[in-house]
Amino acid sequence: MKFLIIGGSDAGIAAGLRAHELDPSCDICLVLADEFPNYSICGLPFYLSGETPDWHSLAHRTEFPGISLLPSHTAERIDPKLKTVQVRRKDGNEVEIAYDKLLIGTGARPVRPSIEGFDLPGVFPLHTMEDSFAVHRFLDERQPKSAVIVGAGYIGLEMADALTHRGIHVRIASRTERILATVDPSLGEHVEAEMQKHGVEVFNRVEINSISNSGEQLTVLGTSGFAATVDLVLVAVGVRPNSELGIAAGITTGAKGALQVSRHMETNLPDVYAAGDCVETWHRLLNRNTYLPLGTTAHKQGRTAAENALGHTREFAGSLGTQVVKLFDIVAARTGLLEDEALKAGFDPFTIETTVWDHKAYYPGARELRLRVTGDQQTGKLLGAQLLGHKQSEVSKRVDVFATALFHRMDVEELNELDLSYTPPLSSPWDPIQMASQAWTRALSAAQSTSLQTA
Amino acid sequence: MKFLIIGGSDAGIAAGLRAHELDPSCDICLVLADEFPNYSICGLPFYLSGETPDWHSLAHRTEFPGISLLPSHTAERIDPKLKTVQVRRKDGNEVEIAYDKLLIGTGARPVRPSIEGFDLPGVFPLHTMEDSFAVHRFLDERQPKSAVIVGAGYIGLEMADALTHRGIHVRIASRTERILATVDPSLGEHVEAEMQKHGVEVFNRVEINSISNSGEQLTVLGTSGFAATVDLVLVAVGVRPNSELGIAAGITTGAKGALQVSRHMETNLPDVYAAGDCVETWHRLLNRNTYLPLGTTAHKQGRTAAENALGHTREFAGSLGTQVVKLFDIVAARTGLLEDEALKAGFDPFTIETTVWDHKAYYPGARELRLRVTGDQQTGKLLGAQLLGHKQSEVSKRVDVFATALFHRMDVEELNELDLSYTPPLSSPWDPIQMASQAWTRALSAAQSTSLQTA
Repeated sequence: MKFLIIGGSDAGIAAGLRAHELDPSCDICLVLADEFPNYSICGLPFYLSGETPDWHSLAHRTEFPGISLLPSHTAERIDPKLKTVQVRRKDGNEVEIAYDKLLIGTGARPVRPSIEGFDLPGVFPLHTMEDSFAVHRFLDERQPKSAVIVGAGYIGLEMADALTHRGIHVRIASRTERILATVDPSLGEHVEAEMQKHGVEVFNRVEINSISNSGEQLTVLGTSGFAATVDLVLVAVGVRPNSELGIAAGITTGAKGALQVSRHMETNLPDVYAAGDCVETWHRLLNRNTYLPLGTTAHKQGRTAAENALGHTREFAGSLGTQVVKLFDIVAARTGLLEDEALKAGFDPFTIETTVWDHKAYYPGARELRLRVTGDQQTGKLLGAQLLGHKQSEVSKRVDVFATALFHRMDVEELNELDLSYTPPLSSPWDPIQMASQAWTRALSAAQSTSLQTA
Repeated sequence: MKFLIIGGSDAGIAAGLRAHELDPSCDICLVLADEFPNYSICGLPFYLSGETPDWHSLAHRTEFPGISLLPSHTAERIDPKLKTVQVRRKDGNEVEIAYDKLLIGTGARPVRPSIEGFDLPGVFPLHTMEDSFAVHRFLDERQPKSAVIVGAGYIGLEMADALTHRGIHVRIASRTERILATVDPSLGEHVEAEMQKHGVEVFNRVEINSISNSGEQLTVLGTSGFAATVDLVLVAVGVRPNSELGIAAGITTGAKGALQVSRHMETNLPDVYAAGDCVETWHRLLNRNTYLPLGTTAHKQGRTAAENALGHTREFAGSLGTQVVKLFDIVAARTGLLEDEALKAGFDPFTIETTVWDHKAYYPGARELRLRVTGDQQTGKLLGAQLLGHKQSEVSKRVDVFATALFHRMDVEELNELDLSYTPPLSSPWDPIQMASQAWTRALSAAQSTSLQTA
């Protein structure tokens, strides 16, 4: 059986490894457009900050048992009838590769905003290894002192941290009400405070219109009177699916132009699977496809696709949109739905925010942990959780307890029944997760009794 | 409705608070034998180490809304027919308190080992606030330089850490093969290494026979040639239920002499509930009662008892035995069953141990995390997990993800489907939890194919 994989990032490599695990005799061929199989794109900010000095260490792995890797091979055309893929090699020659089963894992690429001057020297997107080499060279050669970062999602904020780490003064221009719009503004406010504490200037509700240069200086102009003259501009305003190859072959698309796939990761073409940032993602709470490109999801989808391609049967269990970011000394994380997302999806959400100690206050080093819990006031079901706290407050694995609870569609109240671990230096007899659950129940009762009194 | 609670620690206070929350008009009276309502017994080692200088801060709370507290009131006799309790006050006088519903939360007391010389000055148990005051006075007045700790469970090991923190040289005498027998010996070995790294001497498979004194020095003798002359001896060899009051009233007992309760926390006496360290605990995986005294469980049982006492219906969801301890710079945690416990319970366990980085190795500060995963090789169900790692490796909340998975009786393989959070400074695209799950599946396949080849 010939299993051909297009794309050498998380989805493709996870699929190849799983296929080899399930059937060591499977003939697995993987073509990737660059020279960097399964590099950690999420690690680029740390390479650029200098915390990860050697880019080679960004490789998630350097051995790919059972996979024939063809680097610098760009897939140009899929013929689903003949079951072949035309591939252009680095030397310009085309080769044709046949397949029994095909996986498309072509990933995503940065959204290119319509900003005048986007192509000027000193203005960079950041998505690929090549992008990061270009930025790295610029940092080394030009030693910029100041930067504007356009976009305040994960990459933009991590780059603000990274450049600050290198002694560069950073201004962030964000279109949203608060930075880090993946969490609610009340938490975003604390993220902003952390950025500002480290010297980063934050400008919200700003749309960048133009970048112009004068010598080596770049002047960035935007709405709300935003104007800054700096040495470097990074643009990180999100990604969109690299779905053209699949579309040209006849694959239907859905949300944001991503390839449509079943929960078995099948496309509408026979024997053609797709996974990762180029496809729609089944959302476990919404019970529908969304576009939610995340490395964790890409790994799972690639693994799932391989299992099905090799004749096993596995459904992708779905994403909860669990995400986490560390910025300076704080960590912000979320899983499930924000209140407004829940509302749009037809739930009847009720959200509380509570601040508790991450561990018993009598033990040194206790820090405040902020939790926002959203549940459905009709059914009592947990819908989502957002946490913000110190980097040593186990924020990310606390959000994972919520994620595991959401996976099983638990009630908010039921979280109290979980047998969670406790020792004074690390938690409380009711973990903050459970204190937040109790706060939710109390606040809901109070709100309901107030509304009864009003009625 | 008069709700009388005997005992002012976790179970009793949790019950009182919940009762008041459910029905502010409920007449809640709580008698406690000492002056310390809801103090954190788990915090005593940190008070004695000096990390928590003021013992007052050990109070989990200082306000008890809706609860009439009667401190220094010792319940002496329950009359279940008249529905009264005889209580002796500090001044020696007896009072009779009537109840509609009664909760017994009398807790546990230290096992008193049959060691000759246990009553000598300088030999201390450690369970109550009074115990800790006695030890604290001794530490202040006598400034001991050396100690033997008898027992290598949580309290014994935390006290080894605490006394070392104060500059005291500590020897631990443990009956078990390795210290911290709540995890498997292969992890216990690493706990020992951590203790030894900080100057603690560990003696395993030692039974202490006698303590004798000469002036202010205590000589401790045990099996395997154990002999030590020191300034202080602490004995922490476990606890047993304080169940005599309930037994005298006619309550039946079960495991280790603990009071028998239903999953509604009812005893066999009408309107008499019991909760916490004095009762049997429903084990969610074993589907039977065990004796498993833990503060987390006591809180949940107290809360559950109150709900039922007030006419609601709630079953105690059961314990998984989730536990965690921090010792010097490491954290060890477990949930569910060890392999030998699973075997005894009739499962067909298979266990692997794997060591992975706690986060992406390219980001500074990555540390090794050891995970032991036990699953059933017939059903694929997760049975338990044990973790050991650095105190900043989110060990405790990682064990809680396993605990939440166990709560829902997940397959080991299914852990891969959990949407867990990832950012390079805190995890990997497959969290260590999932890497361990994959290692378990691979090792099981390998073992099964080897056994097929052999057959």
